[in-house]
Amino acid sequence: MIGGLLPSMVDRALVSFLEEDLPEGDLTSRLFFSDPASNRRAEAAIMAEESGVLAGAPFIPRIFSLLGGEVAVNWKVPEGGALLPGQVVGVFSGPLLDLLSGERLSLNLLKHLSAIATTTRRYVEATRAARPSGMRPLRITETRKTLPGLRLFQKYAVRIGGGVPHRSSLSSGILIKDNHIVGVGSVTRALRLARERAPHPYRIEIEVDTPSQALEAAAEGAEILLLDNMSVSVMADLVPRLREKNPDILLEVSGGLTLEKVREISGLDIDLCSVGALTHSPGDLSLRLDFLG
Amino acid sequence: MIGGLLPSMVDRALVSFLEEDLPEGDLTSRLFFSDPASNRRAEAAIMAEESGVLAGAPFIPRIFSLLGGEVAVNWKVPEGGALLPGQVVGVFSGPLLDLLSGERLSLNLLKHLSAIATTTRRYVEATRAARPSGMRPLRITETRKTLPGLRLFQKYAVRIGGGVPHRSSLSSGILIKDNHIVGVGSVTRALRLARERAPHPYRIEIEVDTPSQALEAAAEGAEILLLDNMSVSVMADLVPRLREKNPDILLEVSGGLTLEKVREISGLDIDLCSVGALTHSPGDLSLRLDFLG
Amino acid sequence: MIGGLLPSMVDRALVSFLEEDLPEGDLTSRLFFSDPASNRRAEAAIMAEESGVLAGAPFIPRIFSLLGGEVAVNWKVPEGGALLPGQVVGVFSGPLLDLLSGERLSLNLLKHLSAIATTTRRYVEATRAARPSGMRPLRITETRKTLPGLRLFQKYAVRIGGGVPHRSSLSSGILIKDNHIVGVGSVTRALRLARERAPHPYRIEIEVDTPSQALEAAAEGAEILLLDNMSVSVMADLVPRLREKNPDILLEVSGGLTLEKVREISGLDIDLCSVGALTHSPGDLSLRLDFLG
Amino acid sequence: MIGGLLPSMVDRALVSFLEEDLPEGDLTSRLFFSDPASNRRAEAAIMAEESGVLAGAPFIPRIFSLLGGEVAVNWKVPEGGALLPGQVVGVFSGPLLDLLSGERLSLNLLKHLSAIATTTRRYVEATRAARPSGMRPLRITETRKTLPGLRLFQKYAVRIGGGVPHRSSLSSGILIKDNHIVGVGSVTRALRLARERAPHPYRIEIEVDTPSQALEAAAEGAEILLLDNMSVSVMADLVPRLREKNPDILLEVSGGLTLEKVREISGLDIDLCSVGALTHSPGDLSLRLDFLG
Amino acid sequence: MIGGLLPSMVDRALVSFLEEDLPEGDLTSRLFFSDPASNRRAEAAIMAEESGVLAGAPFIPRIFSLLGGEVAVNWKVPEGGALLPGQVVGVFSGPLLDLLSGERLSLNLLKHLSAIATTTRRYVEATRAARPSGMRPLRITETRKTLPGLRLFQKYAVRIGGGVPHRSSLSSGILIKDNHIVGVGSVTRALRLARERAPHPYRIEIEVDTPSQALEAAAEGAEILLLDNMSVSVMADLVPRLREKNPDILLEVSGGLTLEKVREISGLDIDLCSVGALTHSPGDLSLRLDFLG
Amino acid sequence: MIGGLLPSMVDRALVSFLEEDLPEGDLTSRLFFSDPASNRRAEAAIMAEESGVLAGAPFIPRIFSLLGGEVAVNWKVPEGGALLPGQVVGVFSGPLLDLLSGERLSLNLLKHLSAIATTTRRYVEATRAARPSGMRPLRITETRKTLPGLRLFQKYAVRIGGGVPHRSSLSSGILIKDNHIVGVGSVTRALRLARERAPHPYRIEIEVDTPSQALEAAAEGAEILLLDNMSVSVMADLVPRLREKNPDILLEVSGGLTLEKVREISGLDIDLCSVGALTHSPGDLSLRLDFLG
Repeated sequence: MIGGLLPSMVDRALVSFLEEDLPEGDLTSRLFFSDPASNRRAEAAIMAEESGVLAGAPFIPRIFSLLGGEVAVNWKVPEGGALLPGQVVGVFSGPLLDLLSGERLSLNLLKHLSAIATTTRRYVEATRAARPSGMRPLRITETRKTLPGLRLFQKYAVRIGGGVPHRSSLSSGILIKDNHIVGVGSVTRALRLARERAPHPYRIEIEVDTPSQALEAAAEGAEILLLDNMSVSVMADLVPRLREKNPDILLEVSGGLTLEKVREISGLDIDLCSVGALTHSPGDLSLRLDFLG
Repeated sequence: MIGGLLPSMVDRALVSFLEEDLPEGDLTSRLFFSDPASNRRAEAAIMAEESGVLAGAPFIPRIFSLLGGEVAVNWKVPEGGALLPGQVVGVFSGPLLDLLSGERLSLNLLKHLSAIATTTRRYVEATRAARPSGMRPLRITETRKTLPGLRLFQKYAVRIGGGVPHRSSLSSGILIKDNHIVGVGSVTRALRLARERAPHPYRIEIEVDTPSQALEAAAEGAEILLLDNMSVSVMADLVPRLREKNPDILLEVSGGLTLEKVREISGLDIDLCSVGALTHSPGDLSLRLDFLG
Repeated sequence: MIGGLLPSMVDRALVSFLEEDLPEGDLTSRLFFSDPASNRRAEAAIMAEESGVLAGAPFIPRIFSLLGGEVAVNWKVPEGGALLPGQVVGVFSGPLLDLLSGERLSLNLLKHLSAIATTTRRYVEATRAARPSGMRPLRITETRKTLPGLRLFQKYAVRIGGGVPHRSSLSSGILIKDNHIVGVGSVTRALRLARERAPHPYRIEIEVDTPSQALEAAAEGAEILLLDNMSVSVMADLVPRLREKNPDILLEVSGGLTLEKVREISGLDIDLCSVGALTHSPGDLSLRLDFLG
Repeated sequence: MIGGLLPSMVDRALVSFLEEDLPEGDLTSRLFFSDPASNRRAEAAIMAEESGVLAGAPFIPRIFSLLGGEVAVNWKVPEGGALLPGQVVGVFSGPLLDLLSGERLSLNLLKHLSAIATTTRRYVEATRAARPSGMRPLRITETRKTLPGLRLFQKYAVRIGGGVPHRSSLSSGILIKDNHIVGVGSVTRALRLARERAPHPYRIEIEVDTPSQALEAAAEGAEILLLDNMSVSVMADLVPRLREKNPDILLEVSGGLTLEKVREISGLDIDLCSVGALTHSPGDLSLRLDFLG
Repeated sequence: MIGGLLPSMVDRALVSFLEEDLPEGDLTSRLFFSDPASNRRAEAAIMAEESGVLAGAPFIPRIFSLLGGEVAVNWKVPEGGALLPGQVVGVFSGPLLDLLSGERLSLNLLKHLSAIATTTRRYVEATRAARPSGMRPLRITETRKTLPGLRLFQKYAVRIGGGVPHRSSLSSGILIKDNHIVGVGSVTRALRLARERAPHPYRIEIEVDTPSQALEAAAEGAEILLLDNMSVSVMADLVPRLREKNPDILLEVSGGLTLEKVREISGLDIDLCSVGALTHSPGDLSLRLDFLG
Repeated sequence: MIGGLLPSMVDRALVSFLEEDLPEGDLTSRLFFSDPASNRRAEAAIMAEESGVLAGAPFIPRIFSLLGGEVAVNWKVPEGGALLPGQVVGVFSGPLLDLLSGERLSLNLLKHLSAIATTTRRYVEATRAARPSGMRPLRITETRKTLPGLRLFQKYAVRIGGGVPHRSSLSSGILIKDNHIVGVGSVTRALRLARERAPHPYRIEIEVDTPSQALEAAAEGAEILLLDNMSVSVMADLVPRLREKNPDILLEVSGGLTLEKVREISGLDIDLCSVGALTHSPGDLSLRLDFLG
C-alpha cells in the first residue's frame, strides 16, 4: 500500500496525470537534453514558500518511477511535517530530462495536497486550543464536496492534516439528508424505515436543520445527528437536551464552518465538525523547484 | 464533441467520477425510493448563492445519462451566462432516486468549473476596463498549474470565462524555462538550439526574469517572451525596447498576477497574462440543489 | 442504474464476459447464418429445469445490446419470481446469429445468479418458518467469501433472494476478526482502540469464538457481535446474558450454517446469520435455451 | 508467463479482484497496525481442511506483490499436489497489515481453483481406474459453462487437475450444436456447409443426440462427434458402428456426467468426456489461514 | 456485431484512434466553425483515385458517432465492391466541424483496409483465372505478419477481399514451425508429441521445408502441411506423392508468394496459399475527401 | 522514457499487441516446451535480409519482459544503425518458450518500424546529396496519414530515420487546409480569423495549391506555407517571390513526393518536405529469427 492506498489505484491515477501533462514527452527539454552528454545528473530542491504541512510525499517517487526515471528523492521534511518559508522540503537527484519531466506534476500534486493538510491542521489546532481541558477531542472530518477524480488523494491529505475520515461515498455509509426527509415525509418516518432496512454495518446518521428535528431524530434512535447550519447559541441550548435523551449519540456539525466558528463550537459537547472547504477550495500551498546546478 | 471535447474522454472522466462517489449505488436513497411507488418524479432546482459565471452545464446531462437516469435538465442560464445570488440556474426533473444519485457530482463539477470561469471572467473584465481604448485586447490564459486529472475540464472553464488556451501539455508547445536556461548555459545558446531543433509547428517561447535576458532573447529570435515576476515599472521600461527590436514579438506576463496587478499591466503593450491561480486555487462557487417537491 | 448497480460497472463486466467468450465472433454460427437470407429471425425460450428463484434478468438485455443485437426479451417470470421445472422463463426473439452469440453468457450468468438467489431464499424461508411468531425476522446475509470479480453480481443475487447486504469490502465496514485480536492482544484492547479510532459512520463489529469473549466484547461497547462457530446450546445460554448487558447489541451468527442449523438458531434472539456458502458454492440452477423454430 | 497465462492478463484480473475487496484499504486492520511499531512481521499458515488438489498457487505471490506487500510465501505443497485435512499448504511471512489485506482474496481464489482441480482429478482417476488396460486414456475436458470473468483461471485449474483443454471460446473452434442443426435443416447440410466454409485450422465437431444423427454425421466427414445425453447402453451399441465407418473419428461424450457415469463409459472406445460441473459448480475446497503468532 | 466483430472491441479501437488524432479537439477547425452560424451543414464525397476493393465502410459511421457527430453516410459502393478512379465512394453530410474532425481517421482506415482487400482480391482472382476448371478453389489466407494492434481489422479486410481466415493467434491453432522442430529434434517426434498432447479442436499443421520432411510429416499423421519456400517444380513433384499417402491432407503453401508464383501454383493440387504481404505491406489505396460545398 | 515515449503508453500498446497474438499463450510451443526439462535455454539471432536502418530496438526487451520472460538481448546493431543483408542484428538468449512466444511480435514491430526508418533515411539522404552546399538542410517530416493506433511508434521511427516531427495531432498545431479555406471563403479571411483566434503557442500554417494563394497567404502573415501538389517549375518561380515578401516564412512541400521529386526540390529554397508514404505504406523490411541451437 502507498499511504494506505492500493498501488494499482495510485499508479493508475498517476499514469493518467502524467499522460495529461506529457503524452508524447517533454518537447522543450528534449531539445536540449536528449543526448547522453547533455542529459547530465543534477540536483534540485523543493522549497517551501509559505508555512504549512507537507502532504503527498509518498506519491512523488512513484511519479518519477512511472516516467522510467532514475530519480532519487531525499526528503528533508517527513510526510505530515511542518513547512516554513524558505525551507528545503526535499532534494531530488537524477538526469536533467527526468527531473524536468516530472517537476510540474510533482509540484501540482504536493501543492494541492499540502494545502489540504495545512487547512485541516489549522482546524484541528483551532479546536484543540479552544476545547476545554478534559473533554474528548472535537474531531475534524471532510465531506463529499471533493474535486472529481481526486477524492482518494484529498481524503488522504485530510488524514495527514489530522482529520478523520467520513464515509467515502454514497455506497459506504448512511446519511439521511434534507432531501430524503422531504421525499419520505418526516424525520420519524425516515428513521423508522432506515432502522428497518439499513445494512447493519452502518450507523444511521441524519441531517437536521432545527432543534425540533434534532429532538425528534434523537427520540427515534438516530445514532448520529448532523446539525446543519445552526447558530452556536441554538446549539448551546440544544446539545444538553440531546445528551439527556441519548448520552451516546454522536453529534456532528456542518455548514459554513470557519475557523472562528469552530473555535466557538469547541466549547460544546459535540463530536465532529465536517468542513467542505477542506476539499472544495483548499487553495494552493506555494512550493517551487530550484535546480542546484 | 461535448464542449469541444471528445465524448469518449468526457464520458471516461465522468464514469470515473461517478464510480468514485457511488460505486455500489446510493445506500441511503435506496432505503426510501427503490420501489417504483416511492420513486416518484420530482423537480429540483440548482440555485446560485453568489454571483459568477456558469461553466460545466454540457456535462451535467451526461452524468445523469451515465447513471441510466431519466432526468431532464432545463437550463435557465446558458453556459457562460451570468449568475446572481438566488437565481435559478436550471431545473432538473426525474425520478427521486436518479436526482439524488447524480446531485453531488453535478454540483461538485459545476461549482468548481464555475469558480474557474468566474475568476477568469474577472481577470478578463479587469483588463478590458483598464486597457486604453484602441489597443488590442490583453488576453488572459492559464498555466500548467492545474489540478491533476482535471486539466481538460479546467481549461474548458477558462475558455468559458473568456480566457484563451495556452499549450495543453509539455508535448504540445515549446517553452524554455529558467531551469532549461540553467541547464544549457545561456539564453542565447538555448534559443539557438531551439531554433535549430524545435518542431516547426511551434513558436519558440522563452521565460525571462530580467530585462537583459529579455533583450538577449528578443535579439536571438524568440517569438514569445514570458516576462516572469517583473515589476510593472520594470516592464514599463522594457516593453518599448523590446517592441523596437521586434514589433511582432508576443509578450506574455506571469507571476503573482492579482487583479490589481493585471489592471496596472493593462496599460502596457503586452499580449497575454498567464494566471496560475485560475486553475490551482479558483475557490468554489456556491450552488445548491433544492427539491421543489 | 441496472438492478441498483452503476451502468458503467455492469457494462464493463458484461463486455469483459463477452470478450472472454467470443473475442472474434462466433465462428460456428457465422458459417451458417452470416448472410442476411439465412440469418432469419427466430424465437427461443429459456426453460427452467428445476425449482428456484430467478436472478439476473436485468442484465440479459444488456448482453444482447452490447453484442449490437436486435434481440427482444419477453420475461414470463419476474426478477425474483419462482421457477418450476418445465417453466418458460422468458422468450427471446431476434436474428439467429444474435441469439446464438449471446446464449451461453446469458445462461451462465442466469444459472449462477439464480442458484445464489435460490439458496438464499431457502435460508430465508427456513428461518421464517422456524422463527417464533412475534419475533422480528432473522436476517440472512452473505460474507466476503465471494468468487473473485463477481462480488457485485453475487451480492445482487443475495438481495434478490431476500438476503440483506453485509459490508461490501474491507473498505466499507469495521469487523474485528480473530487474527486482529491475536495481533492486538485482547478483545478489550481491540475494542478500545477501535472505539477511539474507527471512522464514525461504521458500527464496530467483532468476531468472538467463546462466551467469555462475547461477554467481554459486549461489556466494552461492541455494537455487533459475530458469534463464530458456536453450538446452538452454547448460544442458547449466551444470548440472554448478552441481551441483559446490552439490549440493543446486534448479534450475528456464522460458521458452517446449514439450513438445519439455521432452523435451530431461529428460536434464539439473534439478528443475522451470515452464510459463506451463498456465494462461494451456490451450485448452478439448471436452465436451457430451446429454439422455438 | 504465469501458469501459462500472460502476466498482463493475470495482473489485470488480480488488480480488479483486489479493488473489489479493498478499494480504499482495510479499514479494520489499519485501526491496529498502521504504525510501524504495531505492524510487526508475522507468520501465517494456509491449512487444508479437507482432501483435494492444490491449484492457484502461482497467483498468490502476485496478489501480495500487487498490494505492494513484502510477503514471502513458502509452499509446502506444490501446485497440483495432494492436500490432506490438517496439512500445512504454505507459510506466509510478512508484515501483519500486508498479510491481513491479502488473506481473503488469496483464500477465495485458492479455494475455488483447488475445488475445480480436485473435482477434475476425481474424474480423471475414476476413468483411469475403470478404463480397460491397454486402451488409450479417456480424457476429461471442460465446457464453456464457466463463471463469467473466470474462464482463464478455471480452465487453468482443470489443467492442473489433469484435464485437457477444449476450445476456449466461440472464436477458437468449430462446434455445431443442436440449435445450429435446427437452423440449417439437417446434420448433413450443416456438415457440408462447414466443410466448405470452416477455417482450416479447426476440426469440425458436431453435437448429436441420437444414433442416427451420429451415423449421418460420421458419414458426412465430421471429425469429432459430441454424443450428448445418450445412455451408456445406446453408446455401447453405437460406438463400434461409428468406428467401423471412421476409425479415426474423435468421440466426445457430454451431458450429466457423474463420476459413476464416467466410470461406466470408460469401457467404451470413446476419447473424451466434457463435464460442465467442473466449472459451473465445483464447490469450494476448505482452506483457512492461521496466524502462527 | 460490426463486420462480424464485437462492438466493444471495434469501439475501443476506434476511440483510441480518435484520441490519437484529436485528443483535445481539432484546433484549426474550431477557429472557424465553432459557433453555430459558421458550423453549417455540408456534404463531402469520398473519391477513389485508383482501382480496387472497398473495405472498412461499416466502421466509418461509428467514427462519426463516437465523435458525437451528426453525420450521415450514404455509400455509393457497397462493402467489398469495386472502386474505379474518379468514382464517388460515399457521400457524407453533416456539420462542417464533425466532417472535418472525422475525415483523417476515416480516410486512414479506409485506405489501409481497402488496400488489403484489393491485394487479396488480386490474389484470389489470379488463382481463379489460373486454376484448371473443375478443381476446387485454391484459397488465399493471411499470416500472423500483421501490423501490431490492427490484426482484427486487417483480417476482416482479407475476408472482404475474398480470403479465408487462418488461426487468429498463437492461442487458437496448432502450427509446428521450423524452430519447434529444431527444438524437439525431428518432424516425427514433434508430430507424435502433438498428436498426444494437442487440444482436440485443432488440426495439426506443420511447416516443412523439404520434400523429405513433407513425406515424413504426412506419414506421421499431420493434417495440414505448410510447404514453405519450395519451388514450383519441387512441389509439382511432391504434391502427388503426398496425396497418394493421404488424399485428405490439407496442403498450404507460403513464402514469397507473388501473384506470378500463385498463378503457377494454381495448377497444383494444393488447398491454400498464405501470403504475408497481404497484411505486412499492403500499400495504401488512394482515396480523398472532397467537400461539395 | 523509452525512446522518448512514456513507459505507460509503450507498455499499454505492447500489452495489447501481445494479447492480440497470444491471449491464452502459445498453444504449439507449450506442447513441446512446457516442462522445465524441455524448456532449455537457447540462442536466436535476428538476421537482416536486406539493407536498411534498424528502428524499434528499445521496445523489444519490454516485449519479453511483459511476457514475464527471462530473455536477454544483445544488439549487434545500434538503434538507427545500418543493416546489411545477412547481418546479425541482435542475439536473444533465454528459455525456448519465452523466445518463441515473443518472436512474432518482435519481428512484426521491428520490420515495420525499420521499414519506416529506412524509407525516411532514403529521403533524408536523397535531399542531402542533392542540396546545394551551403544551404541549410531540407528537412523531411511525416504527415497524419499514419496507421491507426500506431502513430506514436511510426513517428518515433521517422525520427530514428532522420526525419523531424510535424504536429502530432489535430490538437497540437494549426494547419489550415483546402477544406477550411472553402468553408471560410478565402485564404485572407481564414488567416485573419486564425491570427485573431489561434492559441499563441502555434505558428499558423496554411496549405495552398496555387501561386496566387501562396502569395495571398504570405501577405496575410502566414508563418508556414504548405505548397501542395505544385510542380517543381511552378515552385522554382514561386519560392523567390515568397522569400522576397517574407524572408523568414517557412516553406513546406507535400503531395506525391517521390525520392526523385525530392531530389529536384532540393535545389529550391524550401524548408521541409512532408511525405505521407513514410507512414501509410512504408513496406516491410525483411528480418527473420534464426535459432542458433
